[in-house]
Amino acid sequence: MLQVPEHQVAGHRAINGNLGPVIDNSGRFYKPFLDDERGSTELAFYKSFCSDTRVPDHIRRFFPVFYGTQDLEASDGSGFRPHLVLQDLASNHRNPSIMDVKIGSRTWYPEASEDYIQKCLEKDRKTTTVSLGFRISGLQIYESKESGFWKPEKKQVQSFTADNVRLVLRKFVSSNSSIGSNENPDCFLAPIVYGGSAGILEQLLELKAWFEDQTIYHFHSCSVLILFDKESVLKGRTPVAEVKLIDFAHVVEGRDVIDHNFLGGLCSLIKFVSEILSSSKESSIKACFTELEKKCYCTNNGNY
Amino acid sequence: MLQVPEHQVAGHRAINGNLGPVIDNSGRFYKPFLDDERGSTELAFYKSFCSDTRVPDHIRRFFPVFYGTQDLEASDGSGFRPHLVLQDLASNHRNPSIMDVKIGSRTWYPEASEDYIQKCLEKDRKTTTVSLGFRISGLQIYESKESGFWKPEKKQVQSFTADNVRLVLRKFVSSNSSIGSNENPDCFLAPIVYGGSAGILEQLLELKAWFEDQTIYHFHSCSVLILFDKESVLKGRTPVAEVKLIDFAHVVEGRDVIDHNFLGGLCSLIKFVSEILSSSKESSIKACFTELEKKCYCTNNGNY
Repeated sequence: MLQVPEHQVAGHRAINGNLGPVIDNSGRFYKPFLDDERGSTELAFYKSFCSDTRVPDHIRRFFPVFYGTQDLEASDGSGFRPHLVLQDLASNHRNPSIMDVKIGSRTWYPEASEDYIQKCLEKDRKTTTVSLGFRISGLQIYESKESGFWKPEKKQVQSFTADNVRLVLRKFVSSNSSIGSNENPDCFLAPIVYGGSAGILEQLLELKAWFEDQTIYHFHSCSVLILFDKESVLKGRTPVAEVKLIDFAHVVEGRDVIDHNFLGGLCSLIKFVSEILSSSKESSIKACFTELEKKCYCTNNGNY
Repeated sequence: MLQVPEHQVAGHRAINGNLGPVIDNSGRFYKPFLDDERGSTELAFYKSFCSDTRVPDHIRRFFPVFYGTQDLEASDGSGFRPHLVLQDLASNHRNPSIMDVKIGSRTWYPEASEDYIQKCLEKDRKTTTVSLGFRISGLQIYESKESGFWKPEKKQVQSFTADNVRLVLRKFVSSNSSIGSNENPDCFLAPIVYGGSAGILEQLLELKAWFEDQTIYHFHSCSVLILFDKESVLKGRTPVAEVKLIDFAHVVEGRDVIDHNFLGGLCSLIKFVSEILSSSKESSIKACFTELEKKCYCTNNGNY
C-alpha cells in the first residue's frame, strides 16, 4: 500500500491533489518526475553516482540507496508517471526528529536560465542562504508522547533569521518540554547527537573532507538531512544519528573544480554545530561545579 | 621620494593623472582614500585588526604591516588627501613574480546597495569568480634578465577561463623561456614554491584553518597575493614564497558566522595548487624513471 510520507519535512507533498512522493511499507520512497528536466537530471545523477568508482565506499553511506525507476499512478491523479525508487530514510525510525538543511550560499548555477537564476537569487537573499551559507528548509522535532512533534509551518521556516537558525539547532537536541515555544533549550542531547565518534559533527567532517577533494559533482540546491530518534538515543541504541544527502535535481558536472559553494556552506553548518557542542560541554561542566559546590557547602555546614 | 609602484599588478594605478597608490624607498606603500566609503572601511578594518586580541600571531604575518594614515599630495593632482600607510610587500624583492587572486564566489555582500550588488554579480559571472570561487585580478611572472616580466593586459586577465587559470598557475612556477606564450610550462619550481614546509600550499592551508574557525570578519572582494623571487629561490634563499592578504575596503563584521564565501574560494585555490604540485611530482618521478631506463639501456648496450 502506497501512502503519503508521514515524516516529510520539506518539498512538494502528495496531499490535496498535489504531486509528491509516496512510500510503501517495505522502506521505499517513490519520488515522481516533475514536468521539467529535474527528474531526468536527478536520475542521471543517481545512475552516474552508483557506477562511479571514484566515489569512496565510506561516502556512499551518506546517500539514499537507489533502486531504479518505476511507473506509478501519480498522487495528483494525473495518471501514470515515472518515479525514482529510493530508500525511505525515515522508515526505520519511530519518531524521528528531522532537519532538512539546504547547503550553499548560492542555489543557482552558471548554466541555468536567467529566470531561474533570478528566482533563486531572490530567495537566497531573503533567507539565510547568502548570509549563513545554508538555510533550513524544513524540520520536525519530537517532543514527547503527549505533545508529539514540533513542526513549524513552511512560512515560518522560510523567514528564519541567523538567530532563529542558531536557536532551532539548539532546540533540535534539547529535552525540554514544549520545545517549539521554549526560548532556552537545554541542549541535553547535544553531546550524544551532535558530538561523539558516531555523532552528527563527525559525519559532517567526513563529508567535508570529501568535498575538499572531489571534483566530480557540484551539488546545487542539495540538502543535508539530519535525523535521529530521541527515544532510541535515550535507550543507548545505535546508530545515534544520521546525516544523509538528498535532492539532486540540480547537480552538474564538477569539471575538475571542487564544489566550493557546497563546501563553504557545509563548513558554516559545522561551525554552528560545534559551537553548540562546546557551549553545552561548558554548561555541563558548570553544572558539575555547582553540584560540587553545593555538596561542599552542605558538608561544611555539618562540620562547623 | 614617492614613486609609482613598479610591481603593482592590479587595481588603480597612479599613472596618466589617475589616483593610485605610491611607494617610498623605505618600504612603505601609500594607498589613497577614494571618494566613497572604501577608504574609511579599510582604515576601520586595519584599526580593528591591529587591536583585536582574538587574531592569533601566526595569522598576523599574512597581513601587510599597518603604519597609520598620512595626508599626501594625491597622484591625480587633486591636492592633499589621506592615505593608508602600509608595508610595501614587493619592497624586498628584486624581480618578484606576483599573482593577485580575488577570493570568493561572490564579491558582493548582503548589506551593499542594489547597484553595487548588480555590478559585482555581473562581473562575478563574467569571470571565473562564480565557477572557480576565485579570479586572478592581475599578475606578473619574471622570465629572465633578457626578456623581463610577462605581465598580461588587464583585459586579457579579466577574460581568463578556468583552463587559462590552470595554465597561468602552472606558468607561475615554470622556468621555460617566454613563459607568456608557452603552452607547456615545465612547473620546474612547483615543488619549491608551491610545495615544501614553507611553500605557498602550507601557507594557504594555515589560512584555511583560521577561516574554518574565525567569525570576526567577512572579507569580501579581498585578494590573496602570492609572491616570490625566482632568482633568490634558485639560490636557495628564504623565505621561498609569501602569501599575503590585501584589499579590505569591503570587509564587514562576521557576526558569529564564518566567512564561508572566502573559505570556499580558498579551498578551491588550494585544490588547484595541490593538483599542480602532485602532477609535477609525478612528472619528476617519470623523468627519473626515463633517466634510469636510458642508463640501463646504455649499460646493457655496453655489456652485450
